[in-house]
Amino acid sequence: MAQVAAIIGGGVIGGGWAARFLLMGWEVRVFDPDPQAQHKIGKVLENARRSLPGLSDVMLPDEGALVFCETISQAVDGAIWIQESIPERLELKHKVYQKIQTHCGMDAVIGSSTSGFKPSELQNGATRPEQIMVTHPFNPAYLLPLIELVPTDKNPSELIENAKEILTGIGMYPLHVRAETDAHIADRFLEAVWREALWLIKDGIATTEEIDDAIRYGFGLLWAQMGLFETGLIAGDEAGMRHSIDQITGLSDAHTTRKLERIRDNNLVAILRSLKAQDYGAGALLNAQDARQPVAKIDITQPIQTVARAVPLDWTDYNGHMNEARYLQAFGDGTDRFMEIVGCDADYIASGGSYFTAETHICHLDEVRAGARIRVETQCLLGEGKKMHLFHRMWEGERLLATGEHMLIHVSLETRRASVPADQIATRLGEIAGAHAKLDIPDRAGRAIGVR
Amino acid sequence: MAQVAAIIGGGVIGGGWAARFLLMGWEVRVFDPDPQAQHKIGKVLENARRSLPGLSDVMLPDEGALVFCETISQAVDGAIWIQESIPERLELKHKVYQKIQTHCGMDAVIGSSTSGFKPSELQNGATRPEQIMVTHPFNPAYLLPLIELVPTDKNPSELIENAKEILTGIGMYPLHVRAETDAHIADRFLEAVWREALWLIKDGIATTEEIDDAIRYGFGLLWAQMGLFETGLIAGDEAGMRHSIDQITGLSDAHTTRKLERIRDNNLVAILRSLKAQDYGAGALLNAQDARQPVAKIDITQPIQTVARAVPLDWTDYNGHMNEARYLQAFGDGTDRFMEIVGCDADYIASGGSYFTAETHICHLDEVRAGARIRVETQCLLGEGKKMHLFHRMWEGERLLATGEHMLIHVSLETRRASVPADQIATRLGEIAGAHAKLDIPDRAGRAIGVR
Repeated sequence: MAQVAAIIGGGVIGGGWAARFLLMGWEVRVFDPDPQAQHKIGKVLENARRSLPGLSDVMLPDEGALVFCETISQAVDGAIWIQESIPERLELKHKVYQKIQTHCGMDAVIGSSTSGFKPSELQNGATRPEQIMVTHPFNPAYLLPLIELVPTDKNPSELIENAKEILTGIGMYPLHVRAETDAHIADRFLEAVWREALWLIKDGIATTEEIDDAIRYGFGLLWAQMGLFETGLIAGDEAGMRHSIDQITGLSDAHTTRKLERIRDNNLVAILRSLKAQDYGAGALLNAQDARQPVAKIDITQPIQTVARAVPLDWTDYNGHMNEARYLQAFGDGTDRFMEIVGCDADYIASGGSYFTAETHICHLDEVRAGARIRVETQCLLGEGKKMHLFHRMWEGERLLATGEHMLIHVSLETRRASVPADQIATRLGEIAGAHAKLDIPDRAGRAIGVR
Repeated sequence: MAQVAAIIGGGVIGGGWAARFLLMGWEVRVFDPDPQAQHKIGKVLENARRSLPGLSDVMLPDEGALVFCETISQAVDGAIWIQESIPERLELKHKVYQKIQTHCGMDAVIGSSTSGFKPSELQNGATRPEQIMVTHPFNPAYLLPLIELVPTDKNPSELIENAKEILTGIGMYPLHVRAETDAHIADRFLEAVWREALWLIKDGIATTEEIDDAIRYGFGLLWAQMGLFETGLIAGDEAGMRHSIDQITGLSDAHTTRKLERIRDNNLVAILRSLKAQDYGAGALLNAQDARQPVAKIDITQPIQTVARAVPLDWTDYNGHMNEARYLQAFGDGTDRFMEIVGCDADYIASGGSYFTAETHICHLDEVRAGARIRVETQCLLGEGKKMHLFHRMWEGERLLATGEHMLIHVSLETRRASVPADQIATRLGEIAGAHAKLDIPDRAGRAIGVR
């Protein structure tokens, strides 16, 4: 039987908690007197369903049942986790804990999403103070793993361990804050940065956009992977902190630094390229830079160069060789470029037509490492009616790395069915196919696995 | 002819600048009296060469020439960009500018990497103050795009525009700081966070590691993409800033918020999964969570389930369908899992043997969207000697999405040549191949493109 979590207060934060539990297979009972609560949680759940399950490379449990309750007693009955995310008013929280503790199990964890109160303040006057602690999430709670878990001396260590286990089980990272303090830990940094930002704006030095850019094109990309100190270990003396870092961490030596530099750069390339695929932030800058590079001239009497690039770090496996699937990614990029060349570009696709790959045949002939300059040359074997038959060769210098044979079909994006392309595309494709008909048919074209 | 940049001061920061210019095809002349300069820049360049070129999806220019110079005059002669990254001592900087300006062109930009001085302080007493400005980079300068460009009223606007154009051309983002101020913009935030962090440590509330975790498992992942204010627009009232954000930005409405939520989540999934592939930070947490999920039982009398997952957001294109190359990624994951099942696991691979894919044939039969639960079932068509012939079927429920046929060859990782697998693998693979020989041969096995 599914484990039960009670969500008391169903705004954006409560909704994030509900989504985490539900998508990890828990039964979730929500209590919130707000008539909009169901609608609000629905919106959060919609976002969570599209984003959270795919984070895993394995199958998550079936989604649990979501129940909206009329009373707190109904919500907490049988729940082993009770999450309070109501407004930040202490006397209100105390009243709600009173009701919860009248009806809930003695072993249940009562976690509060508060960033404004310390756990001792929450426990004050409670029937069973030992059951209450702070478990402070970050929005969107269905994707960000951090939970600040702040107990007091009143919480038994078994309950704390149990809470950590449950949080870890739903994919969160409980950061055990050992000494309670105003705003816990993370919000202390947020507040410091907000203060500085508001002064910069007030003094007319920077706009909100300039401040965002100063963060997301620089240290934001480092903090996402390493945080402050680990970044500082390799960042040298930026902000004059070298001495402090050495004193505090005792970690700084040439070997550690060199190793961390590599890790930082691998992560940076991975993050930057992930943002590039989303065309956002620093990734959008990279796309703009690509667009400024000169385009190679096209000679249709020869196979056409459709890709020319260096192999990125995030395309390689642990031993530095390009991953299997990235060969197809490069060939797919070659196909996209060839489509552009025949006029099947973004505008045409927006107008409702495109080519879809129906069938692919790849021969892996040799390995290639990160940083190697590769190119793809594309020969058109057939281009008539609904069909476009391409043969890609991937080279590093004179070394043939792989071949990719692809049958594409023109489709109507409305019906998702095969259709003939627009005249100007048929014409241009026919010209290239005609010119390429004079080239030799590649040895590996029409090849089948296991048939020799 | 290549454009020339002079790098005055060749430490980590100067080295980062040198790498940027070189890898964008510039000739770079370095002046640094430190006998270790050549070695230090070599180390930075090594890091940059493995990481920077692959960021682009197009080919960058050929790398420029790197010249170490004996004198400043030799370094700056003919340079249109002169970057000063010497120690943070004002009188030393003034002396160096004196020498630079005796020998450099009148139109050259003299940029300083300083975070400690304002541009007016640098210009003070210079022969041509109008030529000097702050261009403050962030380490690693070969990957992070941000440059704080801080001019004064003395700098002509043409020079500023020229400087921006050059920086953009080498892939950087010049943030034009309109009013000079101590520490410019970004370091103001770094200093504020460092102050708070040192207090937390001094007060015994958090360790350096806990502080790093509080950043990289939470807001660090948001700031990498959106910075402070754009994140705040959708983050609600964390840190009590809702009111300020609304006042300052005037941007907050339900439609904008909803749209930004989607963008934020797409970026978060992309960043988290990029870190997952690197097994670092929040990505390492996700891998640990995957490892805790139960593994499906194996029945070798049927095709074996080798993948079961939801389609992640970063596997889809702009219209929400899974990208071509991700079909092969899923099949490749299926192959990896099948290898594990026959005993070709991480330990065996570390001992020097593995299977490499020699040939792949994919039939794309139907589309699938982000969030869909897919599975791959794997049938072994042959498993003897050096060969392993697999046939994958990808399903969403009862809908067949694609098939993947793969010929793999066992290789010695030392010689990179074909070899026979260890006995225990040959035996287990033989058992499965034997059991699967009783299944029907798939219709699409042995199929070739264009041959019907």
